Amino acid sequence: MSTADGQVVASQLKAYGELARMHLWEYLKTERGPQELYRLAAEYPRRGGRSLRASLCIAAARCFGASTAESLDSAVALELLHNGFLVHDDIEDESEQRRGLPTLHLLHGIPTALNVGDALAVLSLQPLLRNCSLLGGRLGLRILQETECMARESVEGQALELEWRRTNAINLLPADYLQMILKKTCWYTTIYPCRVGAIIGTRDNVDLDRFIRYGFFLGAAFQIQDDLLNLVGDTDRYGKEPSGDLLEGKRTLMLIHLLHQAPARELRRLRSLLRLERSERTPQQVGWILDVMKHHGSIDYARQVAHGLVGAATHEFTAAFGDTADSDARRFLEALPSWVLERT
Amino acid sequence: MSTADGQVVASQLKAYGELARMHLWEYLKTERGPQELYRLAAEYPRRGGRSLRASLCIAAARCFGASTAESLDSAVALELLHNGFLVHDDIEDESEQRRGLPTLHLLHGIPTALNVGDALAVLSLQPLLRNCSLLGGRLGLRILQETECMARESVEGQALELEWRRTNAINLLPADYLQMILKKTCWYTTIYPCRVGAIIGTRDNVDLDRFIRYGFFLGAAFQIQDDLLNLVGDTDRYGKEPSGDLLEGKRTLMLIHLLHQAPARELRRLRSLLRLERSERTPQQVGWILDVMKHHGSIDYARQVAHGLVGAATHEFTAAFGDTADSDARRFLEALPSWVLERT
Repeated sequence: MSTADGQVVASQLKAYGELARMHLWEYLKTERGPQELYRLAAEYPRRGGRSLRASLCIAAARCFGASTAESLDSAVALELLHNGFLVHDDIEDESEQRRGLPTLHLLHGIPTALNVGDALAVLSLQPLLRNCSLLGGRLGLRILQETECMARESVEGQALELEWRRTNAINLLPADYLQMILKKTCWYTTIYPCRVGAIIGTRDNVDLDRFIRYGFFLGAAFQIQDDLLNLVGDTDRYGKEPSGDLLEGKRTLMLIHLLHQAPARELRRLRSLLRLERSERTPQQVGWILDVMKHHGSIDYARQVAHGLVGAATHEFTAAFGDTADSDARRFLEALPSWVLERT
Repeated sequence: MSTADGQVVASQLKAYGELARMHLWEYLKTERGPQELYRLAAEYPRRGGRSLRASLCIAAARCFGASTAESLDSAVALELLHNGFLVHDDIEDESEQRRGLPTLHLLHGIPTALNVGDALAVLSLQPLLRNCSLLGGRLGLRILQETECMARESVEGQALELEWRRTNAINLLPADYLQMILKKTCWYTTIYPCRVGAIIGTRDNVDLDRFIRYGFFLGAAFQIQDDLLNLVGDTDRYGKEPSGDLLEGKRTLMLIHLLHQAPARELRRLRSLLRLERSERTPQQVGWILDVMKHHGSIDYARQVAHGLVGAATHEFTAAFGDTADSDARRFLEALPSWVLERT
């Protein structure tokens, strides 16, 4: 990606993200209820993060002519929900680190963390209902309908992934993986923010299907890159435990590729390692899986798929946003796919 | 309570409950998404339960002149959310039985159960959005606002209770307990169903504050009776593990009373027992706590408080529903407080 494009993404992410985070604190003030609950609900947001989802929503709305203020509540609702998903995901995946610090359930136990995740999801309803005052009942309800659909896709996607791990699924295809992350990741990370932004900007006067492909390609590239960073990223900057996905037995595109490429002897060892509980897997075993992944080209394969998806997203940008006027927001949305591969 | 009153409650509970459960299955059909997710989401509803919350909502709506059909989606949304709460509560409390069978997380593991609880909460949004078609956007949005408020009260109440257990709170007063169950139990079990029913029946043309006291007294009596059944109920019919609350160290009214009545030597032993992890507590220790509770009159005390609350709820019925015409629904709401103490 060009330096200019990189700067557009960085500056817009910073501007939209700061606005969203400032607005987010309004919903997480400790004086709103039991202090401890609101303090813990603010824990993951306080650790940073780019507010990518909020930025996408604001940018899509601006692209279609809305003001930032008109999309801010939707953007913040999504960030609240996202942080709630993270808290629950970390419990479900037995993750140990999030944004460079121990996960919430490691710090405070599963019961408290579970309820904090519930609280974040519940709190996301407030800005969505405020929308109904700011944007009118009709638009507010349309956004609530989109939210219901998105949340359902997310829990269904999560169910697919948990089921794969629980049954130690081995015979998965790349297409299964893409379908799972379409539901689990893309719908809420990229498709929904574009759709909601466009609903706000056009006063619900645009066919929302045009955002599905842009959002899917962008979100899938994002997820694969995220999984790659977990395996071969700079561990100091990544914020999660290195190779945590291998410890968790997570069905990434790399693992699925490896399960198709590995010769019988390695496959037997892989299967038996994947059958273990997370706590039974050793760093040596994880290191071995990573080695065979590299040896069989699984890392390179995933990188190529991510590159292809970025190309497809860039292409689909035209169908999604091509009829909007030039603006910072539009340039941000156009440059975002390439940025996905360059983030560290 | 009179036999006639008992029959009114039983027959109305049966009629409303059956309707609600029939409608509930529509939202839990496995063909709606990943089969396993929807199968597990239907697991607790399939085990039975009276649909008390749905029945209250339908009765309140009918009392104010609405048809059953107009309140059915709100009633079903509440049942979906309630079952989601149960799944998450069971994880948080490390409960072993629910409705006579092992809890969902014992059967399928915490990750899957956690996501099923999330799914049930997400699914509750569908009937609430359908309300907006059936009842119009204005009423539909008012019910969503009530739902947001109720869900927030519930997670805040849950946070209070978890915090007491986490910090091994000892110096609690009965008033602390009542405030906690106002938020955790009463708001969603009794106050919200009455308020939503009245919103539907009156087309949002009634002061909702009048339902808070009836709902609080009724819900508090219900919760205390539930806690009593856990300790001294008929274990075959109760559906949860007997004395599970003592194993969990749950701060019930009986335990709070005991902590004030026990002499220093017993208090020291109680404190050290409450400090243990659930898995470290033995049946002998639990038996001892129950014995000293009985000895110091804690069970009788809680029974008296529950009786007093039933009296107060019966009195407040007039303020809440006194201006409505005679009907089966009204007789149900009037007789419900006394029924709370007679259920087994």
